[in-house]
Amino acid sequence: MTRDPIQEAHRQWVAHGWTDAADGMAMVTSVVRAQQLLMERIDAVLRPRGLTFARYEVLRLLSFTRAGALPMSRLGSLLQVHPTSVTSAVTRLVTQGYVERVRGDDRRVVLAVLTDPGRRAVEEATRALNADVFESPGLPGPAVRDLTERLTDLRTGLGDPR
Amino acid sequence: MTRDPIQEAHRQWVAHGWTDAADGMAMVTSVVRAQQLLMERIDAVLRPRGLTFARYEVLRLLSFTRAGALPMSRLGSLLQVHPTSVTSAVTRLVTQGYVERVRGDDRRVVLAVLTDPGRRAVEEATRALNADVFESPGLPGPAVRDLTERLTDLRTGLGDPR
Repeated sequence: MTRDPIQEAHRQWVAHGWTDAADGMAMVTSVVRAQQLLMERIDAVLRPRGLTFARYEVLRLLSFTRAGALPMSRLGSLLQVHPTSVTSAVTRLVTQGYVERVRGDDRRVVLAVLTDPGRRAVEEATRALNADVFESPGLPGPAVRDLTERLTDLRTGLGDPR
Repeated sequence: MTRDPIQEAHRQWVAHGWTDAADGMAMVTSVVRAQQLLMERIDAVLRPRGLTFARYEVLRLLSFTRAGALPMSRLGSLLQVHPTSVTSAVTRLVTQGYVERVRGDDRRVVLAVLTDPGRRAVEEATRALNADVFESPGLPGPAVRDLTERLTDLRTGLGDPR
Protein backbone atom coordinates (compact mmCIF):
# COMPACT_ATOMS: atom_id res chain seq x y z
CA MET A 1 0.00 0.00 0.00
CA THR A 2 1.46 3.35 -1.00
CA ARG A 3 -1.55 5.64 -0.71
CA ASP A 4 -2.08 7.40 2.60
CA PRO A 5 -5.37 6.08 4.08
CA ILE A 6 -6.07 9.43 5.77
CA GLN A 7 -5.78 11.40 2.51
CA GLU A 8 -8.01 8.80 0.88
CA ALA A 9 -10.59 9.17 3.68
CA HIS A 10 -10.49 12.98 3.23
CA ARG A 11 -11.18 12.54 -0.49
CA GLN A 12 -14.14 10.28 0.34
CA TRP A 13 -15.51 12.76 2.89
CA VAL A 14 -15.48 15.56 0.28
CA ALA A 15 -16.96 13.23 -2.38
CA HIS A 16 -19.87 12.46 0.00
CA GLY A 17 -20.54 16.18 0.51
CA TRP A 18 -19.29 16.23 4.13
CA THR A 19 -17.04 19.16 3.24
CA ASP A 20 -17.37 21.00 6.57
CA ALA A 21 -16.20 17.90 8.41
CA ALA A 22 -13.48 16.60 6.05
CA ASP A 23 -10.56 18.64 7.43
CA GLY A 24 -11.52 17.91 11.02
CA MET A 25 -11.85 14.19 10.26
CA ALA A 26 -8.36 14.17 8.71
CA MET A 27 -6.86 16.03 11.68
CA VAL A 28 -8.53 13.85 14.31
CA THR A 29 -7.60 10.65 12.46
CA SER A 30 -4.01 11.93 12.09
CA VAL A 31 -3.74 12.48 15.86
CA VAL A 32 -5.11 8.98 16.50
CA ARG A 33 -2.68 7.40 14.03
CA ALA A 34 0.33 9.41 15.30
CA GLN A 35 -0.51 8.34 18.86
CA GLN A 36 -0.64 4.72 17.71
CA LEU A 37 2.79 4.92 16.02
CA LEU A 38 4.36 6.65 19.03
CA MET A 39 2.75 4.26 21.51
CA GLU A 40 4.20 1.29 19.58
CA ARG A 41 7.67 2.78 20.14
CA ILE A 42 6.99 3.57 23.78
CA ASP A 43 5.59 0.10 24.45
CA ALA A 44 8.63 -1.50 22.81
CA VAL A 45 10.75 0.24 25.45
CA LEU A 46 8.47 -0.18 28.46
CA ARG A 47 6.94 -3.66 27.96
CA PRO A 48 10.23 -5.55 28.51
CA ARG A 49 10.58 -3.50 31.72
CA GLY A 50 7.14 -4.57 32.96
CA LEU A 51 5.68 -1.06 32.61
CA THR A 52 2.88 0.63 30.70
CA PHE A 53 3.01 4.34 29.80
CA ALA A 54 0.33 5.06 32.43
CA ARG A 55 2.36 3.37 35.17
CA TYR A 56 5.57 5.01 33.93
CA GLU A 57 3.89 8.42 34.20
CA VAL A 58 2.89 7.72 37.81
CA LEU A 59 6.48 6.76 38.71
CA ARG A 60 7.82 9.79 36.85
CA LEU A 61 5.54 12.24 38.69
CA LEU A 62 6.45 10.72 42.07
CA SER A 63 10.16 10.88 41.20
CA PHE A 64 9.89 14.63 40.56
CA THR A 65 8.64 15.39 44.09
CA ARG A 66 11.10 15.96 46.92
CA ALA A 67 9.66 13.20 49.12
CA GLY A 68 8.83 10.84 46.24
CA ALA A 69 5.21 10.99 47.39
CA LEU A 70 1.90 12.46 46.23
CA PRO A 71 -1.71 12.16 47.37
CA MET A 72 -3.66 9.83 45.07
CA SER A 73 -6.07 12.66 44.20
CA ARG A 74 -3.20 14.92 43.15
CA LEU A 75 -1.79 12.17 40.90
CA GLY A 76 -5.16 12.01 39.14
CA SER A 77 -5.31 15.73 38.47
CA LEU A 78 -1.67 15.88 37.29
CA LEU A 79 -2.16 12.91 34.97
CA GLN A 80 -5.53 14.28 33.81
CA VAL A 81 -7.12 10.87 34.08
CA HIS A 82 -10.04 9.35 35.95
CA PRO A 83 -9.38 8.43 39.63
CA THR A 84 -10.13 4.75 38.86
CA SER A 85 -7.28 4.73 36.30
CA VAL A 86 -4.87 6.08 38.92
CA THR A 87 -6.05 3.50 41.45
CA SER A 88 -5.55 0.66 39.00
CA ALA A 89 -2.07 1.88 37.95
CA VAL A 90 -0.96 2.35 41.56
CA THR A 91 -2.36 -1.04 42.64
CA ARG A 92 -0.23 -2.71 39.96
CA LEU A 93 2.84 -0.64 40.96
CA VAL A 94 2.35 -1.71 44.59
CA THR A 95 2.31 -5.37 43.45
CA GLN A 96 5.53 -4.72 41.55
CA GLY A 97 7.14 -3.24 44.66
CA TYR A 98 7.66 0.15 43.01
CA VAL A 99 5.13 2.11 45.09
CA GLU A 100 3.71 1.92 48.63
CA ARG A 101 0.34 3.23 49.78
CA VAL A 102 0.70 5.25 52.99
CA ARG A 103 -1.85 7.23 55.06
CA GLY A 104 -0.91 10.91 55.34
CA ASP A 105 -0.78 12.99 58.54
CA ASP A 106 -4.32 13.92 57.57
CA ARG A 107 -5.65 10.34 57.83
CA ARG A 108 -8.22 10.98 55.10
CA VAL A 109 -5.40 11.39 52.57
CA VAL A 110 -3.77 8.35 50.95
CA LEU A 111 -0.28 8.94 49.57
CA ALA A 112 1.48 6.98 46.84
CA VAL A 113 5.15 6.74 47.85
CA LEU A 114 7.99 5.74 45.53
CA THR A 115 10.18 2.87 46.83
CA ASP A 116 13.92 2.56 46.09
CA PRO A 117 13.30 -0.14 43.45
CA GLY A 118 10.62 2.15 41.96
CA ARG A 119 13.11 4.99 41.75
CA ARG A 120 15.68 2.78 40.02
CA ALA A 121 13.02 1.48 37.61
CA VAL A 122 11.81 4.95 36.60
CA GLU A 123 15.35 6.27 36.15
CA GLU A 124 16.30 3.34 33.95
CA ALA A 125 13.05 3.56 31.94
CA THR A 126 13.53 7.31 31.43
CA ARG A 127 17.07 6.81 30.12
CA ALA A 128 15.75 4.22 27.65
CA LEU A 129 12.74 6.31 26.57
CA ASN A 130 14.95 9.36 26.09
CA ALA A 131 17.46 7.42 23.96
CA ASP A 132 14.97 5.36 21.92
CA VAL A 133 11.95 7.68 21.54
CA PHE A 134 12.20 11.24 22.82
CA GLU A 135 15.60 12.16 21.34
CA SER A 136 14.50 11.08 17.84
CA PRO A 137 10.71 11.43 17.82
CA GLY A 138 10.24 11.36 14.03
CA LEU A 139 10.80 15.04 13.18
CA PRO A 140 13.73 17.50 13.26
CA GLY A 141 13.99 19.76 16.33
CA PRO A 142 12.30 22.93 15.08
CA ALA A 143 9.39 20.90 13.65
CA VAL A 144 9.04 19.09 16.99
CA ARG A 145 8.65 22.39 18.87
CA ASP A 146 6.30 23.75 16.22
CA LEU A 147 4.06 20.66 16.39
CA THR A 148 3.99 20.83 20.19
CA GLU A 149 2.79 24.47 20.05
CA ARG A 150 -0.03 23.56 17.70
CA LEU A 151 -0.99 20.57 19.80
CA THR A 152 -1.03 22.86 22.84
CA ASP A 153 -3.50 25.10 20.98
CA LEU A 154 -5.58 22.02 20.19
CA ARG A 155 -5.50 20.81 23.81
CA THR A 156 -6.54 24.26 24.99
CA GLY A 157 -9.36 24.28 22.44
CA LEU A 158 -10.51 20.93 23.81
CA GLY A 159 -10.47 22.11 27.44
CA ASP A 160 -6.96 21.58 28.82
CA PRO A 161 -5.46 24.34 31.01
CA ARG A 162 -3.04 26.62 29.22
CA MET B 1 -4.96 23.05 38.62
CA THR B 2 -3.97 25.82 36.24
CA ARG B 3 -0.46 24.83 35.26
CA ASP B 4 -0.07 22.72 32.13
CA PRO B 5 1.38 19.32 33.22
CA ILE B 6 3.24 18.94 29.90
CA GLN B 7 5.03 22.29 30.26
CA GLU B 8 5.86 21.33 33.83
CA ALA B 9 7.29 17.97 32.66
CA HIS B 10 9.39 19.79 30.04
CA ARG B 11 10.79 22.05 32.76
CA GLN B 12 11.64 18.97 34.86
CA TRP B 13 13.34 17.26 31.91
CA VAL B 14 15.58 20.29 31.33
CA ALA B 15 16.28 20.60 35.07
CA HIS B 16 17.43 16.95 35.10
CA GLY B 17 19.83 17.62 32.21
CA TRP B 18 17.81 15.59 29.69
CA THR B 19 17.89 18.58 27.32
CA ASP B 20 18.15 16.59 24.08
CA ALA B 21 15.01 14.67 24.98
CA ALA B 22 12.89 17.43 26.54
CA ASP B 23 11.28 18.74 23.33
CA GLY B 24 10.58 15.24 22.05
CA MET B 25 9.05 14.24 25.38
CA ALA B 26 6.75 17.29 25.29
CA MET B 27 5.70 16.56 21.69
CA VAL B 28 5.05 12.87 22.28
CA THR B 29 3.13 13.56 25.50
CA SER B 30 1.10 16.25 23.70
CA VAL B 31 0.09 13.77 20.98
CA VAL B 32 -0.92 11.22 23.64
CA ARG B 33 -2.95 13.80 25.56
CA ALA B 34 -4.63 15.23 22.42
CA GLN B 35 -5.60 11.72 21.36
CA GLN B 36 -7.10 11.13 24.80
CA LEU B 37 -9.19 14.33 24.64
CA LEU B 38 -10.39 13.58 21.09
CA MET B 39 -11.16 9.94 21.91
CA GLU B 40 -13.33 11.07 24.85
CA ARG B 41 -15.41 13.09 22.38
CA ILE B 42 -15.54 10.28 19.83
CA ASP B 43 -16.51 7.71 22.47
CA ALA B 44 -19.28 9.99 23.74
CA VAL B 45 -20.79 9.80 20.23
CA LEU B 46 -20.11 6.14 19.46
CA ARG B 47 -20.64 4.38 22.82
CA PRO B 48 -24.43 5.04 22.95
CA ARG B 49 -24.53 3.59 19.42
CA GLY B 50 -22.77 0.38 20.50
CA LEU B 51 -19.63 1.18 18.51
CA THR B 52 -15.94 1.75 19.19
CA PHE B 53 -13.77 3.89 16.90
CA ALA B 54 -12.03 0.74 15.60
CA ARG B 55 -15.36 -0.86 14.66
CA TYR B 56 -16.64 2.42 13.20
CA GLU B 57 -13.54 2.59 10.98
CA VAL B 58 -14.19 -0.92 9.66
CA LEU B 59 -17.80 -0.02 8.79
CA ARG B 60 -16.68 3.25 7.22
CA LEU B 61 -14.10 1.56 4.97
CA LEU B 62 -16.63 -1.07 3.85
CA SER B 63 -19.22 1.64 3.14
CA PHE B 64 -16.79 3.40 0.79
CA THR B 65 -16.43 0.35 -1.51
CA ARG B 66 -18.88 -0.25 -4.36
CA ALA B 67 -19.90 -3.72 -3.13
CA GLY B 68 -19.66 -2.88 0.59
CA ALA B 69 -17.07 -5.64 0.87
CA LEU B 70 -13.31 -6.00 1.45
CA PRO B 71 -10.96 -8.92 2.06
CA MET B 72 -10.02 -9.11 5.76
CA SER B 73 -6.33 -8.71 4.86
CA ARG B 74 -7.07 -5.50 2.92
CA LEU B 75 -9.01 -4.09 5.90
CA GLY B 76 -5.95 -4.65 8.05
CA SER B 77 -3.60 -2.83 5.71
CA LEU B 78 -6.03 0.08 5.20
CA LEU B 79 -6.57 0.44 8.95
CA GLN B 80 -2.83 0.00 9.61
CA VAL B 81 -3.52 -2.34 12.49
CA HIS B 82 -2.58 -5.90 13.38
CA PRO B 83 -4.69 -8.65 11.72
CA THR B 84 -5.87 -9.86 15.14
CA SER B 85 -7.37 -6.41 15.83
CA VAL B 86 -9.31 -6.56 12.55
CA THR B 87 -10.53 -10.08 13.34
CA SER B 88 -11.73 -9.03 16.78
CA ALA B 89 -13.50 -5.91 15.45
CA VAL B 90 -15.19 -7.84 12.63
CA THR B 91 -16.24 -10.68 14.97
CA ARG B 92 -18.03 -8.16 17.17
CA LEU B 93 -19.62 -6.46 14.12
CA VAL B 94 -20.88 -9.86 12.93
CA THR B 95 -22.49 -10.41 16.36
CA GLN B 96 -24.12 -6.99 16.04
CA GLY B 97 -25.51 -7.93 12.60
CA TYR B 98 -23.59 -5.11 10.89
CA VAL B 99 -21.15 -7.31 8.93
CA GLU B 100 -21.16 -10.81 7.41
CA ARG B 101 -18.13 -13.00 6.75
CA VAL B 102 -18.27 -14.46 3.21
CA ARG B 103 -15.80 -16.66 1.28
CA GLY B 104 -14.65 -14.95 -1.92
CA ASP B 105 -14.53 -16.49 -5.43
CA ASP B 106 -10.97 -17.33 -4.48
CA ARG B 107 -11.92 -19.59 -1.58
CA ARG B 108 -8.76 -18.68 0.34
CA VAL B 109 -10.00 -15.10 0.69
CA VAL B 110 -12.46 -14.15 3.44
CA LEU B 111 -14.48 -11.01 2.76
CA ALA B 112 -16.14 -8.75 5.31
CA VAL B 113 -19.45 -7.62 3.82
CA LEU B 114 -21.56 -4.72 5.09
CA THR B 115 -25.21 -5.59 5.83
CA ASP B 116 -28.12 -3.14 5.40
CA PRO B 117 -28.31 -2.50 9.18
CA GLY B 118 -24.53 -1.97 9.12
CA ARG B 119 -24.88 0.61 6.36
CA ARG B 120 -27.60 2.45 8.27
CA ALA B 121 -25.50 2.36 11.46
CA VAL B 122 -22.37 3.76 9.82
CA GLU B 123 -24.31 6.50 8.05
CA GLU B 124 -25.99 7.56 11.25
CA ALA B 125 -22.73 7.42 13.23
CA THR B 126 -20.93 9.47 10.58
CA ARG B 127 -23.60 12.17 10.68
CA ALA B 128 -23.23 12.34 14.46
CA LEU B 129 -19.39 12.32 14.43
CA ASN B 130 -19.35 15.03 11.77
CA ALA B 131 -21.74 17.24 13.73
CA ASP B 132 -20.31 16.66 17.22
CA VAL B 133 -16.56 16.19 16.60
CA PHE B 134 -15.19 16.70 13.09
CA GLU B 135 -16.96 20.00 12.28
CA SER B 136 -15.62 21.62 15.46
CA PRO B 137 -12.43 19.72 16.35
CA GLY B 138 -10.98 22.30 18.77
CA LEU B 139 -9.19 24.62 16.35
CA PRO B 140 -10.19 27.08 13.58
CA GLY B 141 -10.08 25.75 9.99
CA PRO B 142 -6.65 26.98 8.84
CA ALA B 143 -5.05 25.72 12.06
CA VAL B 144 -6.74 22.33 11.57
CA ARG B 145 -5.19 21.95 8.09
CA ASP B 146 -1.83 23.17 9.33
CA LEU B 147 -1.78 20.69 12.22
CA THR B 148 -2.75 17.85 9.87
CA GLU B 149 0.18 18.67 7.57
CA ARG B 150 2.63 18.57 10.48
CA LEU B 151 1.13 15.33 11.78
CA THR B 152 1.51 13.89 8.26
CA ASP B 153 5.22 14.80 8.40
CA LEU B 154 5.42 13.11 11.79
CA ARG B 155 3.64 9.98 10.56
CA THR B 156 5.97 9.83 7.56
CA GLY B 157 8.95 10.23 9.89
CA LEU B 158 7.63 7.31 11.93
CA GLY B 159 7.18 5.06 8.89
CA ASP B 160 3.72 5.73 7.43
CA PRO B 161 3.37 5.94 3.63
CA ARG B 162 3.20 9.44 2.26
